[in-house]
Amino acid sequence: MPGNSIGHIFRLTTFGESHGPAIGGVIDGCPAGLEIDYSFIQNELNRRRPGQSVITSNRQEEDKVNFLSGIFNNKTTGAPIAFIIYNKDQQSSDYNHLKDTFRPSHADYTYDQKYGIRDHRGGGRASARETVARVVGGSIAKLILQQAGIHILGFVSQIGEIISDIDNNNIGSNKIESSPVRCPDKAISKKMVALIEQLKKEGDTIGGAITCIIDGVPVGLGEPVFDKLHADLAKAIMSINAVKGFEYGSGFASITMRGSEHNDKFKSIGKKIYTETNHSGGIQGGISNGENIYFRVAFKPIATVMSDQETVDKNGKETTIKGKGRHDVCVVPRAVPIVESMAAIVLVDHYLRNKIAKN
Amino acid sequence: MPGNSIGHIFRLTTFGESHGPAIGGVIDGCPAGLEIDYSFIQNELNRRRPGQSVITSNRQEEDKVNFLSGIFNNKTTGAPIAFIIYNKDQQSSDYNHLKDTFRPSHADYTYDQKYGIRDHRGGGRASARETVARVVGGSIAKLILQQAGIHILGFVSQIGEIISDIDNNNIGSNKIESSPVRCPDKAISKKMVALIEQLKKEGDTIGGAITCIIDGVPVGLGEPVFDKLHADLAKAIMSINAVKGFEYGSGFASITMRGSEHNDKFKSIGKKIYTETNHSGGIQGGISNGENIYFRVAFKPIATVMSDQETVDKNGKETTIKGKGRHDVCVVPRAVPIVESMAAIVLVDHYLRNKIAKN
Amino acid sequence: MPGNSIGHIFRLTTFGESHGPAIGGVIDGCPAGLEIDYSFIQNELNRRRPGQSVITSNRQEEDKVNFLSGIFNNKTTGAPIAFIIYNKDQQSSDYNHLKDTFRPSHADYTYDQKYGIRDHRGGGRASARETVARVVGGSIAKLILQQAGIHILGFVSQIGEIISDIDNNNIGSNKIESSPVRCPDKAISKKMVALIEQLKKEGDTIGGAITCIIDGVPVGLGEPVFDKLHADLAKAIMSINAVKGFEYGSGFASITMRGSEHNDKFKSIGKKIYTETNHSGGIQGGISNGENIYFRVAFKPIATVMSDQETVDKNGKETTIKGKGRHDVCVVPRAVPIVESMAAIVLVDHYLRNKIAKN
Amino acid sequence: MPGNSIGHIFRLTTFGESHGPAIGGVIDGCPAGLEIDYSFIQNELNRRRPGQSVITSNRQEEDKVNFLSGIFNNKTTGAPIAFIIYNKDQQSSDYNHLKDTFRPSHADYTYDQKYGIRDHRGGGRASARETVARVVGGSIAKLILQQAGIHILGFVSQIGEIISDIDNNNIGSNKIESSPVRCPDKAISKKMVALIEQLKKEGDTIGGAITCIIDGVPVGLGEPVFDKLHADLAKAIMSINAVKGFEYGSGFASITMRGSEHNDKFKSIGKKIYTETNHSGGIQGGISNGENIYFRVAFKPIATVMSDQETVDKNGKETTIKGKGRHDVCVVPRAVPIVESMAAIVLVDHYLRNKIAKN
Repeated sequence: MPGNSIGHIFRLTTFGESHGPAIGGVIDGCPAGLEIDYSFIQNELNRRRPGQSVITSNRQEEDKVNFLSGIFNNKTTGAPIAFIIYNKDQQSSDYNHLKDTFRPSHADYTYDQKYGIRDHRGGGRASARETVARVVGGSIAKLILQQAGIHILGFVSQIGEIISDIDNNNIGSNKIESSPVRCPDKAISKKMVALIEQLKKEGDTIGGAITCIIDGVPVGLGEPVFDKLHADLAKAIMSINAVKGFEYGSGFASITMRGSEHNDKFKSIGKKIYTETNHSGGIQGGISNGENIYFRVAFKPIATVMSDQETVDKNGKETTIKGKGRHDVCVVPRAVPIVESMAAIVLVDHYLRNKIAKN
Repeated sequence: MPGNSIGHIFRLTTFGESHGPAIGGVIDGCPAGLEIDYSFIQNELNRRRPGQSVITSNRQEEDKVNFLSGIFNNKTTGAPIAFIIYNKDQQSSDYNHLKDTFRPSHADYTYDQKYGIRDHRGGGRASARETVARVVGGSIAKLILQQAGIHILGFVSQIGEIISDIDNNNIGSNKIESSPVRCPDKAISKKMVALIEQLKKEGDTIGGAITCIIDGVPVGLGEPVFDKLHADLAKAIMSINAVKGFEYGSGFASITMRGSEHNDKFKSIGKKIYTETNHSGGIQGGISNGENIYFRVAFKPIATVMSDQETVDKNGKETTIKGKGRHDVCVVPRAVPIVESMAAIVLVDHYLRNKIAKN
Repeated sequence: MPGNSIGHIFRLTTFGESHGPAIGGVIDGCPAGLEIDYSFIQNELNRRRPGQSVITSNRQEEDKVNFLSGIFNNKTTGAPIAFIIYNKDQQSSDYNHLKDTFRPSHADYTYDQKYGIRDHRGGGRASARETVARVVGGSIAKLILQQAGIHILGFVSQIGEIISDIDNNNIGSNKIESSPVRCPDKAISKKMVALIEQLKKEGDTIGGAITCIIDGVPVGLGEPVFDKLHADLAKAIMSINAVKGFEYGSGFASITMRGSEHNDKFKSIGKKIYTETNHSGGIQGGISNGENIYFRVAFKPIATVMSDQETVDKNGKETTIKGKGRHDVCVVPRAVPIVESMAAIVLVDHYLRNKIAKN
Repeated sequence: MPGNSIGHIFRLTTFGESHGPAIGGVIDGCPAGLEIDYSFIQNELNRRRPGQSVITSNRQEEDKVNFLSGIFNNKTTGAPIAFIIYNKDQQSSDYNHLKDTFRPSHADYTYDQKYGIRDHRGGGRASARETVARVVGGSIAKLILQQAGIHILGFVSQIGEIISDIDNNNIGSNKIESSPVRCPDKAISKKMVALIEQLKKEGDTIGGAITCIIDGVPVGLGEPVFDKLHADLAKAIMSINAVKGFEYGSGFASITMRGSEHNDKFKSIGKKIYTETNHSGGIQGGISNGENIYFRVAFKPIATVMSDQETVDKNGKETTIKGKGRHDVCVVPRAVPIVESMAAIVLVDHYLRNKIAKN
């Protein structure tokens, strides 16, 4: 019931505040006997890490993960896997002025009202620093999925008004990772970097979009009628900080389409059934149909801007506030591994659930 | 774990197939002492019912709900509330040709593969007829929310390329319900009806969008970090048949916005704090902030079209199929109470969860 | 979270009051493709039915189960299985005098206080009539277990001071079912019947014990550290009306044993490992070890006695009350299939959970 | 679904192995604003700690708890509370001989078979060292219960054949804690100590029983029909290492009682209703009735004995094994705070659940 766990069989619980001693999590329900590839996990964390490039926050965290349990001789034992990442480069004094003042479009006001108490340092529990634990969970989920031939690839498809219309089939991990904004479209990537640099000077921020493609998904993942695969994906993705929208397959564009145009014809090669088009986004009736799953995620601009903003304090007194601390201009480049991680956690959970669908 | 329940405290479980004897559900966790307004519930069902107007399926179901438990002297007792709606106007023979053939963009293929067995009559469990149980659950949720001053209002904001840009503050239940397509914008409503009538002649279908507005929400609903209010809303809404996308507040439009423009300034009148704009859609950090919650939902066109379509049968043999049965041209007018119901179930669940947030 | 569901993968939700229109339930998570043996299910219900013999309540209920969903061509489809049993022989007027008075050692007072409203007719939700739904759930669970070679056998091992010390290995279903009190020990069974008949004359009631033996359990069922197999069995069994104690294996007798005497030596025949003794009751570290599981359950005497008893009414005013209605003298003979059912639900849930323990 | 969490609203997840770097846990769902009394928590841990007296294992662990999150200015924030206790005095080499051999009546064999991999050092996840995390969770639960006036008191009522028949109303914390075996009955306590000392010399172990009394419980805790208060207590208690039986109120003794004798008459003083006797153990129909809750728990003798025992190795080859390591002779003195902790977790979970029972 409490809100810090996700997954029914493969379940991740996260804990920790931005400026507390550590962020961490517990994965319960990971099958026993899985070989842990530590360098893969660390690499995933590095993709999310602040300070990884000129366009990201320069908070310095090595984000090294310490596993406390559930692994023996480099293999999972079936016991819960606990892990922590120490917070090292907190600069809590940057946040002193926020103790009694609410930053616009942050979680300060709502946390304060809901709980009657608030760890204001660095945003406390509401900080996106919490997502480091999601990436650890997601990377272990990916290890399971890799064995099953399922691969998840996210990339930045839009920043502000700069849109990439790259062909989904023409994207590789290398192209994505070699771009500082994780956009595999080289020309567009450059424009995105330029926009971010310009906004950094202006002290402003900008929204963006991530597209995610999952291939190798077997037919059958998803549990109607409420735990449809895309419904669980939507929840997991929407739970990421700053996400404002989710669409899969034809998404919002389907609104203007005719049924005759939208329907994905079934075809076959021998016994192998496939669809000619994929407006369904790889999911029909809430269950994967074997085609690529793809979805798109909208991120709002980061709320911390470096100019004066009107707001109120705890007593409702109007005041102004100005961004301090070390912040990104645009969240999406670093959010790619987070989106992938949440997708991986959902996929592996449904992959395991589906193993017991038939008698 | 199984997929047919939703909600942690106020939990709805649904059951039933389109052409089975009955559709129904169980609500567990409804607080005791709630007065049941049967005519309100029936009215909600009538809003979803087929055959309610010229533009909807002419399957005739009175959709009368029978409560089996959990109510005594018209009040809830704290025991589970079970209810059934008998299926009466099944015409299963309409579906004989589907026994071994997969309709494009339906759930036939995926159910068949996942479970190895499929009740093909009327779409079986995958039929949108299942949503009648959601409306019963949602109407009881609404009774609780009404007492708390929370109101949910959905309406059709787009069908195909016909878009209403009506002011969210200028919408009333009467305006919505007096339109056959549930669009409160009179001129636009007429165009929508005309489009549907034309497509009906063509044997084709069309997508649409529903906008939903929730007012009176107290500050504090939502449980970070995974059960954020909008994340649970997204899951609940995405679990409705034919939904392809969800956005709240500024949604996908936030991608192109600057932080300085997107941020909602806090203001106050006395001790009462509010935001000047509402790009946040009434939710900050996953917790309601007291402003109106609003979100928009994309529905794909209905997959059943009345023209020949290529597809395959169970053995992968290519064949053609043609829509039979009684179907809507556009799902959104009847989906309005379903969207409201799912929102109500999420809201009441979080309303109850929030009662124990503070010591 | 609400309390009317049990099981994580194979989940039974029950509903209904003793004098409402129906008792029923929903099983969600039953694997698809299971063949339903209706006569087996009905036979299980008959074993629990009132009026089955001279020593049971003469309420007449045929307890015929109606399945509403989840079954197609006699096989489960993976969709939720809903079922109802209509209440037919209610005599609610027998309970009019209880509207405002609390029967001693019943649930009247606590339901009234907890919920502020109470369906007093026939005990409402607290009536053991609810267990009819458990037997339906349990009988479907048994169908799954039978395929896996797991068999559950319960019998009455004690009524009042009359104890059977029959050898657990010398018990068959026939011997049990041919006894009106379900005690396979013929001589003891007669004594038990005589005791019940005598108490019936006296208008009094008596406690008893059921022993349950499960054979064919594979090694590996149970999920440490909280969902140990015996912990989940304990909860499921303790949730049955009138149960006051649970012990498995050596149980309370282990208190006085030495470790050297209690330990079960491992032996082997070829690769097959077994234990020489079975004080562990087939479970070690919360996980089944392949030996027979056995446990014993204590039932208190039924609270409804046919003599005047002092009590109070809603306002705390002291009064007397006298049993009316049709009641058993001793609950245990009819409780045997209920105990077996709860054990079956736990076993099948863990059987399915265990399928995903290893990578 | 995974097995390492307990509680629906107040949920404890534990992790860690006996000889891993740390044991720990996460409490999610603790209400915000609770003041944390660190010395109380440490004192509870000290009660469970090995090496606390001459009769316990001399493994030296200071069992100091480190809180990582969820607390700010000594108050809970509503965020998950993570904590770790480092393992310091592991002597893993004591367990080398167990790598491929199964200790009788331990969890070695079942873990090995279930998971296909086993951390054999110190019993790994199956070690009772895991319960240190339960005591942290329980001590925070107790802080909530104390505010509500609910107190939990466990004591040793039996070791081997030495039974205390002390009056439940004549027991105080001081009397219990001043006894090295936690038996408040001074004369009996001495006999218990003598028995343990004798068995230590013999290299043998012995079972025991703990009685637990909970007073100050308000009417209304417990959620029928499956989450009855005593059912959840039974599960929580049975999940503790070495527990073989649970009974509450009249328990197994009720088997031989008549209804007329067992029923608890309701009485009143003014509006205040109470029962004259308390065979119900403070729970009726699964819901607390305001009287003292009491239950009794059976613990088997510890499986590690210091004499040669026959067993088998991984390949089924028969061999002998001899206890090494540092072990208690009788688990019950140190298990008292563990029993109390599990009871506290269940009580606080139901205390919070009950807050939303009524509309």
